[in-house]
Amino acid sequence: MSKFYGIGVGPGDKELLTLKAVRVLENIDLLIIPEAKKSNGSIAYEIAKDFINPRAEIIYMEFPMVNNTEIMYEVGKKAARVVESYAADGKDIGFITLGDPSVYSTYSYILKNLDSEVEVETIPGITSFCASAALLNKPLVTGEEILSIIPATADEELINRAIDVSGGQAFLKVFNHSEKLINILNEKGLIDNSVMVKRCGLEGCEVVHSIEEHLKKGKQYLSIVISRKEY
Amino acid sequence: MSKFYGIGVGPGDKELLTLKAVRVLENIDLLIIPEAKKSNGSIAYEIAKDFINPRAEIIYMEFPMVNNTEIMYEVGKKAARVVESYAADGKDIGFITLGDPSVYSTYSYILKNLDSEVEVETIPGITSFCASAALLNKPLVTGEEILSIIPATADEELINRAIDVSGGQAFLKVFNHSEKLINILNEKGLIDNSVMVKRCGLEGCEVVHSIEEHLKKGKQYLSIVISRKEY
Repeated sequence: MSKFYGIGVGPGDKELLTLKAVRVLENIDLLIIPEAKKSNGSIAYEIAKDFINPRAEIIYMEFPMVNNTEIMYEVGKKAARVVESYAADGKDIGFITLGDPSVYSTYSYILKNLDSEVEVETIPGITSFCASAALLNKPLVTGEEILSIIPATADEELINRAIDVSGGQAFLKVFNHSEKLINILNEKGLIDNSVMVKRCGLEGCEVVHSIEEHLKKGKQYLSIVISRKEY
Repeated sequence: MSKFYGIGVGPGDKELLTLKAVRVLENIDLLIIPEAKKSNGSIAYEIAKDFINPRAEIIYMEFPMVNNTEIMYEVGKKAARVVESYAADGKDIGFITLGDPSVYSTYSYILKNLDSEVEVETIPGITSFCASAALLNKPLVTGEEILSIIPATADEELINRAIDVSGGQAFLKVFNHSEKLINILNEKGLIDNSVMVKRCGLEGCEVVHSIEEHLKKGKQYLSIVISRKEY
């Protein structure tokens, strides 16, 4: 019986792969690797590559980083057809995803389009926000606090309301939204209680404390900002 | 040079330990194991035990499950003194924690009390909410949605406001707050879009879809409820 595995590979550090992710990668027949741009390489692949069955077939698929649900749905549909055709041949198929497959992953667009007869197993991964907090040796939340995981792409009013109710926040997808985030954090008096982690666990990993100054320098790819109301 | 490690062991499945957690457990000199009640055993220990250095010294410490910051602070202080005294002897000391050390862990109360001269490394773990979503093969959030991680112990008005702004929610610490949660989910029209995962990855692990009926049966230890506005 074939199976389709969604495999979370964590945010960067190879050692943050789980034993389960390693076992599945070592035995996979086919691995689908998402690329943001065609032939541009994949960070998820760089993290996983030491563990991938050397006899596994590799397929690269383009998953553009866009905020367009329709496009993502179409790309997911295409990948789902590939999965189904290999599943019909009795193959075990893997799809690797940065961080965790249930948190803002293109993997969910494949699942949404997949024939229900294909057996699926999702393997959770270490999220960027947990790995970043670990790097800082700081809690994200304690006690009765609510934790908000906020894409910086979200509506500004929603972001403000989320901050109002939560004790800790992690801002993802900071990339293109530095100015918006600076404004929000200043308005909420949170800028001095915020830290940026860049390329967590990857080469060039950096912790930035003066985040306003740094965010103004430009686009911050693979960066996350963590804020807490009280330390 | 000695080090103090906060080690996330994930929610239950031994295979969800990371390679880093396993490496550190295999080499640790002393392991502090938190118990909710004295001599009551520890789920974190059950998950980790196959990997712990057989020559490691083990200390059990009582960390009561209470919503009292002062008590937690005092317990953390006591543990911090133990860590410092072993660190002075050049030992590597570990503290294991269910799920992730930065998300509602007693570990943060040790860090808060620890002499800054002790070197610390936090090892992130798979959270219960990521593992539960993986078990369901469902996303927690996609696209621009905000994810709210909500302790059922939080203030009801805050919980309602968090639900209003987020596309996906995970309710933790459901244990004693079944009725409150049923009311909130009914009021928000979310009860049919909510699923409960009990003892995720542990013996007796169960997925419950008719959660209202089930929650009414009584206390739900080690349970999590996941809701999504749209699937």
